[in-house]
Amino acid sequence: MTSAIEVEIRSGVYYDSVMLMQLQRALAGLPGVLDAGVVMGTEANKDILAQSNLLAPEVQVAVADDLVIVVKGEDQASARSAIQKVDELLTVRRTGGVDQEYLPKSLETAGRMLPQAQWVLISVPGRFAAGVARQSLDLGKNVFLFSDNVSLEDEIELKGLAAQKGLIIMGPDCGTAIVNGVGLGFANKVRRGPINIVAASGTGLQQVTVRIHQKGGGVTHAFGTGGRDLTEAVNAATARQCIELLDRDPQTKVIVLVSKPPSRKVADDLVEVLRRISKPAVVDFIGYSTPTRIVDNVHFAFSFDDTADLAVQLASVETDRVLPKPPDSSRFASSQRFLRGLFSGGTLAYESLLLLQDYLPEVYSNAPLDKQFKLADSLVSQGHTLIDLGEDEFTVGRLHPMMDNDLRIRRLEIEANDPQTAVILMDVVLGFGAHPDPASELAPAIAKAKADAEAADRYLEVVAVVSGTDEDPQILEDQVKKLREAGVVVDLSNEACVRYAGRLVRSLETETVQVQTFKSVDVAVLDQPLAAINVGLESFTQSLTAQNAPVIQVDWKPPASGDEKLMSILARMRKS
Amino acid sequence: MTSAIEVEIRSGVYYDSVMLMQLQRALAGLPGVLDAGVVMGTEANKDILAQSNLLAPEVQVAVADDLVIVVKGEDQASARSAIQKVDELLTVRRTGGVDQEYLPKSLETAGRMLPQAQWVLISVPGRFAAGVARQSLDLGKNVFLFSDNVSLEDEIELKGLAAQKGLIIMGPDCGTAIVNGVGLGFANKVRRGPINIVAASGTGLQQVTVRIHQKGGGVTHAFGTGGRDLTEAVNAATARQCIELLDRDPQTKVIVLVSKPPSRKVADDLVEVLRRISKPAVVDFIGYSTPTRIVDNVHFAFSFDDTADLAVQLASVETDRVLPKPPDSSRFASSQRFLRGLFSGGTLAYESLLLLQDYLPEVYSNAPLDKQFKLADSLVSQGHTLIDLGEDEFTVGRLHPMMDNDLRIRRLEIEANDPQTAVILMDVVLGFGAHPDPASELAPAIAKAKADAEAADRYLEVVAVVSGTDEDPQILEDQVKKLREAGVVVDLSNEACVRYAGRLVRSLETETVQVQTFKSVDVAVLDQPLAAINVGLESFTQSLTAQNAPVIQVDWKPPASGDEKLMSILARMRKS
Repeated sequence: MTSAIEVEIRSGVYYDSVMLMQLQRALAGLPGVLDAGVVMGTEANKDILAQSNLLAPEVQVAVADDLVIVVKGEDQASARSAIQKVDELLTVRRTGGVDQEYLPKSLETAGRMLPQAQWVLISVPGRFAAGVARQSLDLGKNVFLFSDNVSLEDEIELKGLAAQKGLIIMGPDCGTAIVNGVGLGFANKVRRGPINIVAASGTGLQQVTVRIHQKGGGVTHAFGTGGRDLTEAVNAATARQCIELLDRDPQTKVIVLVSKPPSRKVADDLVEVLRRISKPAVVDFIGYSTPTRIVDNVHFAFSFDDTADLAVQLASVETDRVLPKPPDSSRFASSQRFLRGLFSGGTLAYESLLLLQDYLPEVYSNAPLDKQFKLADSLVSQGHTLIDLGEDEFTVGRLHPMMDNDLRIRRLEIEANDPQTAVILMDVVLGFGAHPDPASELAPAIAKAKADAEAADRYLEVVAVVSGTDEDPQILEDQVKKLREAGVVVDLSNEACVRYAGRLVRSLETETVQVQTFKSVDVAVLDQPLAAINVGLESFTQSLTAQNAPVIQVDWKPPASGDEKLMSILARMRKS
Repeated sequence: MTSAIEVEIRSGVYYDSVMLMQLQRALAGLPGVLDAGVVMGTEANKDILAQSNLLAPEVQVAVADDLVIVVKGEDQASARSAIQKVDELLTVRRTGGVDQEYLPKSLETAGRMLPQAQWVLISVPGRFAAGVARQSLDLGKNVFLFSDNVSLEDEIELKGLAAQKGLIIMGPDCGTAIVNGVGLGFANKVRRGPINIVAASGTGLQQVTVRIHQKGGGVTHAFGTGGRDLTEAVNAATARQCIELLDRDPQTKVIVLVSKPPSRKVADDLVEVLRRISKPAVVDFIGYSTPTRIVDNVHFAFSFDDTADLAVQLASVETDRVLPKPPDSSRFASSQRFLRGLFSGGTLAYESLLLLQDYLPEVYSNAPLDKQFKLADSLVSQGHTLIDLGEDEFTVGRLHPMMDNDLRIRRLEIEANDPQTAVILMDVVLGFGAHPDPASELAPAIAKAKADAEAADRYLEVVAVVSGTDEDPQILEDQVKKLREAGVVVDLSNEACVRYAGRLVRSLETETVQVQTFKSVDVAVLDQPLAAINVGLESFTQSLTAQNAPVIQVDWKPPASGDEKLMSILARMRKS
């Protein structure tokens, strides 16, 4: 089949990308036209034209600011005739805009038309977007910045400004959000509910909200931060604001944090931020490997599905996994800082060391997970220490500590007399083969240790996991009772005991005060019905209208017709 | 308070550690005695005596084979009087043994007395234990080797022998097991059930069985492997046998694998073994970090509690998370090997790359998780490739691919025409802002691509996640229907789609045949009522008796009174 290509290149004009798409389709649909391409003349776009065999030689000279129109016709005449219809087609397109009597030319005018608008949606081309965002912040509006191709420097500057003003800037390159039930940009219609989201991820946010909806849960707010928010340079400026805001919102029950691969440092930092808030949180950082599934109130998920599952579960129960409230740190003497673990079970000891990593960076052991924390002498504790008394070194010509409590009781006495010991953690393993009544020996020894500590003006907490069933030869209930009567905090789960002890010892460390580096956002932004000004893609105005949210479309044109020098002069004039 | 210490050292005698413990307690309970220590004279034990102020100077000369008896009395007379009672106290102890008319002196005799015994329990001191284990294997018995302080060389040799014979050797240093509902060593009494366990971990196994019981589940078999089984040297010899055995057992519904920190290589290997079996598996390798929560049938847990939760959940449902069965690999042409992903959503693309790591080691992308897999040219796929068409490079002066399908359809055509393409994976994102009817454009293009492939004697699989809700402006149901009618495999979960595609493409690779390096263990060992011979701690015989399991206690004495040279001569005589 023969074909012929006609090209037109237009410089210094601005059309939004919806127009380009519609023009391309209209051209491709004309009689005798085989294919068409309407794009800005970037190198990437020229490569794509080449792949579709639309890269005529004259296109090579086009630059990024040029509009390139290519038509492949069955013959030269068809192609030329199509090109000649371009202006006409652009006019047709113009009439099918938003349904709004008057299109203001400026943000200021739009703001006067819809004073309750808290948000400005921006989807103009990247090189103009930062300027519009700055104007919006100056008007006291929060910003949903859909545009991509915005520089990192602009992002950092804009987020600094927003932090000062107590405003949110979602983006740049923020594709989606839900605010007070109204979807911005690309957003799905989901049930309202108490699971609220912060996401450095567009389709991640969408997939999670969709799956929450499909699993019966609901979402009222889902803030996008832009894909670069969790890089070290931006340091989660938007994510921190949004988490702090949702934590103050009485309607928010579960906070979900999703991110495309984040900076490890920023991610670790955000986990610390989440551990200090009052609500359960679910984290899905793609590619962030974690050795534990839960730490305190923070649950780690491994896919969007998993995130949705966890969030729906957590929202449907009244509390997180319940641990007893540890005693107030004021009960302890100032010398008391350390955890001492005395285990008879080797793997219970290992799991405890693993879980303690969430609370205490350094725990010494005779059987450490990491060799640098190997005790110099297994008989002498240093700092936080956890001993496995069932290790080979202790069992030559000696019964295993599950059968014989002697060695453990002797060590308990030593640890309890150490003025630095705050918490003693231990396991009591029941079952066939084990000591027939371990509590009868351990409980009096613990009671004495606690009394001795009290006589020395200290408070000694003893935490014990009793690992056994109601059918074991020892009577489980009696064992627990004897230990509790001696003042021991008892649980049947090793994890629960370790987390309780870890949390307690951590609370004895000097609390590092977190300085909030931003002005808090007014919680009204969550409560008031959303109203917005839209600058850019008209389809976003149509979406808001379809959701019954008041919106004003600005008839935006590039300042100075896109001339960057002139733009910067205008910006300076505006500032002064 | 004054005190005096008396010491007695006995050489060339053997007492089991229960006797030592009981003697120590009896001495400590005598009038005028303040404390007592009865231990073998190892350096570690001397250090412990020192810590209790029981290390008299004359103890320093004792060696590991010597029995050291130390008594601290209120005065010399009390201490000396206690020491003089040692022989008498040892005699008293002797009478309180197991309730058995005749105690055979050898394994052979015991075997004749209880021919149905499939197991020998061994808890003699470490240096004698390997010899007893070897004899047991030679008699065709499975071994539960409780003893620790057994050398790695002996462990490797014993496990090699067991593998040849189709026998199991649990241990050395295996503290616990449950076989056909009967607990061996330290074991809890738990409900029988279809969750069966393999553990390189003693108290880990116990805590998991206990928590399963407490959560309403049940365990019939729990094999200990010994703590070194998952080191590179031992290479999971016992774990592999037990997994293969449980996989063949029709009563086993869920297989749980628990280990103290394993070798990464061996752990990775075992995950591969588990992925090839037919049953859901739960893995809790302490400190083994994994970026995903589930891969195929293998679920990763992060604590014993979590392990128990997952196992109980999996045992209570009829199937694992359901994925449709992929088409048979024979439908594909031999050239077809690669996955091609065409995504409009950046984070959906990232999650997909992450999850694909479980199936395909190398997936190239314009937005890879790992820079080494960055495509040289985003427009040209290489090997397995996944493209994010929403990346900035594609969106300058062009609508986002969620709004405009043009670019994706052009790329779909190119990928479908590549004879190496087997599967095309894509996302279809619905919601406000997105294309009003994406399926109307994608479905015909996909149908054509599939038909073109068929015309070229290939089968092209297209898998699409539709991310949207039943309340979105596009009608979700219609979108799914249009795609399915075009032959697309559709799911609402990105994870489900990715895993389906990953599994399919993996199945097209040449299957590496796994050579089984051991003789399979007869499944009868799981079905027959347990019967055993016990060599060592009498309390283990008492435990079996309490559980109504037939058992014979051997009246074991160290060969040649513990003289190692003589022992090795005897062993050689026995072999010849």
